[in-house]
Amino acid sequence: MRKINIPDAFSQVKQAYSPLIAGDIDDVQVKIALIDGPFDWHQHPDEDEAFFIIEGEMVMEMRTQNIVLKQGDLFVVPKGTEHRPNATAPCKVMLIEKASVLNTGDKTTDKTKKDIDYVA
Amino acid sequence: MRKINIPDAFSQVKQAYSPLIAGDIDDVQVKIALIDGPFDWHQHPDEDEAFFIIEGEMVMEMRTQNIVLKQGDLFVVPKGTEHRPNATAPCKVMLIEKASVLNTGDKTTDKTKKDIDYVA
Repeated sequence: MRKINIPDAFSQVKQAYSPLIAGDIDDVQVKIALIDGPFDWHQHPDEDEAFFIIEGEMVMEMRTQNIVLKQGDLFVVPKGTEHRPNATAPCKVMLIEKASVLNTGDKTTDKTKKDIDYVA
Repeated sequence: MRKINIPDAFSQVKQAYSPLIAGDIDDVQVKIALIDGPFDWHQHPDEDEAFFIIEGEMVMEMRTQNIVLKQGDLFVVPKGTEHRPNATAPCKVMLIEKASVLNTGDKTTDKTKKDIDYVA
């Protein structure tokens, strides 16, 4: 049982799109990640995915619209929705999603992360 | 599909311990709530409950220890753990928990909230 300061924990995030796990809530995990540059287009067929912006600004690109997200914004990408996170400068994000979620969803790319560490 | 600015949404929270729902992530909900004064001792036998501090300071009282939580802190109360949120001044909190979680857990008190509205 420990508390984690989320802004401070970003000092452990070494590169963009390499998330760390900050907490488990039943079968859901809170992760922290840096968004920087375009990610890969993907979708999660079976899981919703929430983005909460800790610091900075990003764009959630989707096939029908783009949504600009700024500090304090919460946005849920519904399951089955193709999306591509993008940012022109590093953006600190808290993710809330099932532990079963793979970052690149239905795709395997050079950005796919299968074994994610916990915040130390 | 909409974004919600969490700090701004607190303008819709009218009193302490009256949460609003900010988002659904599969069977989990993000809620916002004001902690102010002692809540009621309770536990959730089947669900973990995460607290993320948006602004202010609170104490998570438990039977074996108290944990002080400040802005940016994430803390998960494990299922089956008796706890009582407390604060000496209004503290803005984001809760992450199964939609099935009742705020007073295994107790029914005058603080029990069964029908929770969404952020407008």
